[in-house]
Amino acid sequence: MTQQPQRPPFADWLSKTNDITRTFLAASRVPGLINMAGGLPEPTTFPVAELAAIAAEVVHQHKQDVLGYGPVEGLPELRDALAKRFSSPELTLTRANVFVTSAGMQGLDLLGKVLLEPGQLIACQFPTYLGALDAWRPRSPTYRNIVLEDPAFDAVAALAGAQFAYTVPNFSNPSGRLVDVETRQALVDAAHRTGTWLVEDDPYGTLHYDGPPLPRMIDLSARARPGTPYAGPVVYMGTLSKEIAPGLRVGWVIAAPGFIEALAMAKLGADLCTSGLTQRVALAAIEAGLIEKIQPTILDIYRKRRDALCVAMREHLSEWLDWEVPVGGMFVWAVGRDPSLDTDALLPHAMAAGVCVAPSSVFDATGRNRRALRINFTRNDESQLTEGVRRLARAFEAMGVSRA
Amino acid sequence: MTQQPQRPPFADWLSKTNDITRTFLAASRVPGLINMAGGLPEPTTFPVAELAAIAAEVVHQHKQDVLGYGPVEGLPELRDALAKRFSSPELTLTRANVFVTSAGMQGLDLLGKVLLEPGQLIACQFPTYLGALDAWRPRSPTYRNIVLEDPAFDAVAALAGAQFAYTVPNFSNPSGRLVDVETRQALVDAAHRTGTWLVEDDPYGTLHYDGPPLPRMIDLSARARPGTPYAGPVVYMGTLSKEIAPGLRVGWVIAAPGFIEALAMAKLGADLCTSGLTQRVALAAIEAGLIEKIQPTILDIYRKRRDALCVAMREHLSEWLDWEVPVGGMFVWAVGRDPSLDTDALLPHAMAAGVCVAPSSVFDATGRNRRALRINFTRNDESQLTEGVRRLARAFEAMGVSRA
Repeated sequence: MTQQPQRPPFADWLSKTNDITRTFLAASRVPGLINMAGGLPEPTTFPVAELAAIAAEVVHQHKQDVLGYGPVEGLPELRDALAKRFSSPELTLTRANVFVTSAGMQGLDLLGKVLLEPGQLIACQFPTYLGALDAWRPRSPTYRNIVLEDPAFDAVAALAGAQFAYTVPNFSNPSGRLVDVETRQALVDAAHRTGTWLVEDDPYGTLHYDGPPLPRMIDLSARARPGTPYAGPVVYMGTLSKEIAPGLRVGWVIAAPGFIEALAMAKLGADLCTSGLTQRVALAAIEAGLIEKIQPTILDIYRKRRDALCVAMREHLSEWLDWEVPVGGMFVWAVGRDPSLDTDALLPHAMAAGVCVAPSSVFDATGRNRRALRINFTRNDESQLTEGVRRLARAFEAMGVSRA
Repeated sequence: MTQQPQRPPFADWLSKTNDITRTFLAASRVPGLINMAGGLPEPTTFPVAELAAIAAEVVHQHKQDVLGYGPVEGLPELRDALAKRFSSPELTLTRANVFVTSAGMQGLDLLGKVLLEPGQLIACQFPTYLGALDAWRPRSPTYRNIVLEDPAFDAVAALAGAQFAYTVPNFSNPSGRLVDVETRQALVDAAHRTGTWLVEDDPYGTLHYDGPPLPRMIDLSARARPGTPYAGPVVYMGTLSKEIAPGLRVGWVIAAPGFIEALAMAKLGADLCTSGLTQRVALAAIEAGLIEKIQPTILDIYRKRRDALCVAMREHLSEWLDWEVPVGGMFVWAVGRDPSLDTDALLPHAMAAGVCVAPSSVFDATGRNRRALRINFTRNDESQLTEGVRRLARAFEAMGVSRA
């Protein structure tokens, strides 16, 4: 047999990626390891019996919707239900404002396809969701990091010239931060003034533990034209992954109708349509009130876990790390007290000690931010979280990080 | 209220697209219109009762797989089942050769992401599947059309310098053509010699009406290294959409492990993982033998419809069109006897006469091929097909196309 000839090269972006997400997923299969790196929900909250009954019922009752091809924009009845759910006294939504995605990640992928040419600019809340960086890497964008809590933050300067601004105002991944109302309003005003699309990614919006939710930016934006279907610059994204179950892979984008039409062109070439089975299950679950039914249990579990994590961190990690207790979401973001802390270098020590956390480098398009850690508190119970923190302290000791 | 500022522009590829697929989908909602444009299966073949029972069962029995996040490459048990299904005496497959996609279209999207930089070359079987052109448009490739049935076809010249060659050897969409064994072998030999990836897209492989299937190119390629897991240049793609039901949105790519790893990086940023619900339903359906159970019914229905369509075409359309009776698949490809026939111009006459077919321009990356039509025979019964052909003949008359 002759020598195998060289294959054509893979696209450039593949050489610029990292596989840390796969490391996280693989970590969940290492025996005995406490995985606090991912963003996984607690599986005992999944409404299994209800979803099993719904699944059988929708196949029987809606066989063409479930088993045939569906409209690229999503099942009309699900779009209507989402329009109703997210309409408010300020925000008027019709079916034309709503687009169904194969969960939140697909919304980010399609966003990149419709708005990015190579080298174009994204104004990105910093630190930035790893999955968003993954989704846009094949489009080769450039980034302007925007730090919303910086006292000198200037929203107009931040947004000007960008194809879009990307924000996670509710309990941001990775920082856990809740963006205050004044900053939301400033972003909306800047989007209206500059014209730039303002993406409000909201997978964690229902996971608030210490108070009522703040107004959405799309609602604030809608105040400019009350009573008319939304046509402004905010692109609001959500998912059932944290509200019901990630395995359904159903999410949504709510935006101006012209933006929805562009997304539809991109989805035609991405997966043609989201599964009719999962869409019909999602619709029946929403109509049956499953989100509201399981939400109190989810909030109760996650609040207790957050508290247990933060108690253990105060006891074992406060010499090395600073953090704010997050008021919602799934993560604590902990920053090295020593500016020279390198959490990429800490990770192997953590793995050796039997715990996995997410180093800050993966939440930075440049990979340079090495000073912080993202610690998840939704997937492990209180005793596992406490033990995980003890192991992390041992990793700091093993690495010889100086105590503050 | 001030004048609305200009929004950032959409990506360039959006201005180069056509929305003919959406026109086809919309056509199915026009009352009384006979839609022979799409590629839809006959919904009465869907195994509804079996799938309803399976859906409920998998939610109960595999709740973590169904409702949680899954591995990006696909459910391990489904990858194993597909490796087993497509292994042959010639072709050795392991789990590492198999990748689960959110149906066939996603395979094409991910293929473009991992192999295409702007301007790079695809060697494409001509005429070309519309959905493939849609999937790759955001990557801005260039095309070399390859005509496999041309007596002067030179496979090495066709593949040399291309990132990949794209073929649909079984009952190609749109041409319905079955690529003969000699040409398959020539393509495989050329891929081995040039190193170019050779994509074998096979959504219609089980829809053969007049004889046994021909050998797959991936099997022919595997003969070069018998007994070892496949590591060659063929990328084989399939889907459950035509074998069970499109609404599941489950497909697969079978290729060398290194290619699977590249696809996984692309899928991480596309939809993270395919729904665990649809994957578990697909696996249970395969294990229950549902594909084999419903295949005889599908073949019987589609064979009769093909025959009825061709009989009606001979009676009503042979003055204007030439075609070969396809031995499988879903389409008849009919070419104008008059080289100046313009089927883009025919389409509005057809719609006015109450029938929709697919004009050849959409199967050409340049849009220049206006001489042919793709006519689907799987979605309408014999009497509808006959009436649709009569209406199409009226459209030719209304347009005043000269009779040969």
